[in-house]
Amino acid sequence: LLDIDIHGPSIPKLLHIEDKLITAHGENMLPVLVGDNLKVISMGLMSRDHDAAIIWRGPMKFQVIKQFLKNVEWGELDYLVIDSPPGTGDEPLSIAQLLEHPDGAIIVTTPQDVAIADVRKSISFCRSLQLPVLGVIENMSGFICPKCSEVIDIFKSGGGEQMAKEMGVPFLGRVPIDPQIVQACDTGRPFVYHNSNSPAAKAFKEAIKVLSNLNVKENL
Amino acid sequence: LLDIDIHGPSIPKLLHIEDKLITAHGENMLPVLVGDNLKVISMGLMSRDHDAAIIWRGPMKFQVIKQFLKNVEWGELDYLVIDSPPGTGDEPLSIAQLLEHPDGAIIVTTPQDVAIADVRKSISFCRSLQLPVLGVIENMSGFICPKCSEVIDIFKSGGGEQMAKEMGVPFLGRVPIDPQIVQACDTGRPFVYHNSNSPAAKAFKEAIKVLSNLNVKENL
Repeated sequence: LLDIDIHGPSIPKLLHIEDKLITAHGENMLPVLVGDNLKVISMGLMSRDHDAAIIWRGPMKFQVIKQFLKNVEWGELDYLVIDSPPGTGDEPLSIAQLLEHPDGAIIVTTPQDVAIADVRKSISFCRSLQLPVLGVIENMSGFICPKCSEVIDIFKSGGGEQMAKEMGVPFLGRVPIDPQIVQACDTGRPFVYHNSNSPAAKAFKEAIKVLSNLNVKENL
Repeated sequence: LLDIDIHGPSIPKLLHIEDKLITAHGENMLPVLVGDNLKVISMGLMSRDHDAAIIWRGPMKFQVIKQFLKNVEWGELDYLVIDSPPGTGDEPLSIAQLLEHPDGAIIVTTPQDVAIADVRKSISFCRSLQLPVLGVIENMSGFICPKCSEVIDIFKSGGGEQMAKEMGVPFLGRVPIDPQIVQACDTGRPFVYHNSNSPAAKAFKEAIKVLSNLNVKENL
């Protein structure tokens, strides 16, 4: 898992490894291990001063992202999952240019028009860079009130699916708002593992299923 | 109002001027007028192709932000309000370096730890650049279920206030989640004007009041 959000790296907190550090190995870096199967690289693992701001312009970000790809002893990987900040700026641009044969991009949106407008640009961005769009996932899609069980579409609902259709890209599903996700993220406990029967966890697993099928098709 | 979100300019949609364009006047640009009192500059007002991605690296962004300050016929202004994308990257860095005597920055966060962690970096960023922090506002702070009137802290609550205290910066208040804000944003109707008695509108107005008092004190 490679976190290329240079200014706001959240992955270490989400995995409860914020006090770990990337170690040096000769000229190279060793990723932080989480359990037996996950290797992680993030700016948030370069220093323990979590309040310090990384005040870097684009060229510096390009260099560090390049190092995160080329100077890390990743070893043999099944997948390299890259978490990018939103938008069409230096981080996604750098990674799209540095990767040699990326399988593609997964685009995350929320349902309201203001967010959809930005995400349409992200899809155009992928197309300009010949990066396949594997699909769109609609996050924060509806909220089930834990007191009265009514469904409230706080940020609307369905906008991501409609946009995916209009732009001709696969739709991977809707993840509802669940305060347990916020809790899980803040405490670094994997939500899907600990809340596996919740509607949100099912939506995550369904998205993975759709993605696996897409990959199989594309690789054959 | 200067929107320096180059990759995801939302201001034109929020003000329902997404089909307007900045016009040229000799070597300069004329801002788009909204009503009698508001002049607006945004990347979203440079072209009507709203799906096109702006694939620019940092130096290009610096140049366009410089032009938005120096080559726009702003005329006499009471305030220049600048809306920046989050983080500590090229856009906030460019504007902080280009402004000659900025009054300061208003920092917006949501309550959960993952967001607070990024915002602490933004405050460090302001301090590194000698940009005064006028205050922190906590957005998406609690949700009042419209069906059962229970308060649900979807993204937690109070984290922004606590962080402001810890970092020694003023706290400007909490804006609750209100689906009417989403609707207002998507249709370009100013929420505070059309929903002026809602708790969220009152929180916005309270924040302005605190800010006005701060400004008076700082300017004396």
